[in-house]
Amino acid sequence: MTPPRSCAFCAIVSGGEAHRVYEDDALVAILDRAPLIKGHVLVMPREHVPTLDDLPERLMVPVVSLVQRTSRAFQRSLGADGSLTLANTRVSQSVPHAHVHVVPRREGDGLFSARMIWKRTRYADGEAAQLATRLREAIAAS
Amino acid sequence: MTPPRSCAFCAIVSGGEAHRVYEDDALVAILDRAPLIKGHVLVMPREHVPTLDDLPERLMVPVVSLVQRTSRAFQRSLGADGSLTLANTRVSQSVPHAHVHVVPRREGDGLFSARMIWKRTRYADGEAAQLATRLREAIAAS
Repeated sequence: MTPPRSCAFCAIVSGGEAHRVYEDDALVAILDRAPLIKGHVLVMPREHVPTLDDLPERLMVPVVSLVQRTSRAFQRSLGADGSLTLANTRVSQSVPHAHVHVVPRREGDGLFSARMIWKRTRYADGEAAQLATRLREAIAAS
Repeated sequence: MTPPRSCAFCAIVSGGEAHRVYEDDALVAILDRAPLIKGHVLVMPREHVPTLDDLPERLMVPVVSLVQRTSRAFQRSLGADGSLTLANTRVSQSVPHAHVHVVPRREGDGLFSARMIWKRTRYADGEAAQLATRLREAIAAS
């Protein structure tokens, strides 16, 4: 599919600024700029696929495998107890280029109770880069 | 993997009561009893896989394909504008048998703002069965 010129994720895929935690021929994974919980990753195909509904079969094993590797990396490298995997299709989907959110979870983090799911937090200077490095390494070693 | 005797989803897979919307040799999909939004579906493998992290490669294409078919069925049969796909791994995972939530979304439903993500609603008598039938048919036809 020909991407719209304005696609923010196509821009990242083709080298735009982002804290990458993984890339290969088919996929790119980056830190979300406004994480639900620090370490929150976005897994996306390089090619412009508008929504998860449109993901072609040949990308399904790569995407799910990378989600698993990211989730395990959270547990191994960030001390997470588990993870949340989430994809918005059309409604609440901010960028129309398919992406899967993978969020590190800790017991008692309150994500589903006191805090709203879309209440975002912010990285301190340098913190995102540091976290990206840890995750990139943990994923590469998995 | 040998399932624990007490696994609620293994019980459903082997014929226990649930509003099924799809089943085949590998997967079962049912309505969540306490939906985030009415029509909320759970997609699960028949075999006892504890978490999404443990999902074997041979089940990835079946699971993602069924999520897509469910999401499209929401749009075709329930008038949804889109969907939310979500999986909890260990933290907030109520049943330790891997399952993916697929939730119908409408513009303005407020799922991520006024309502908490885990604030559940209830089906009226007969309503769940009726919805299950509509979705089962829409998925079968997809």
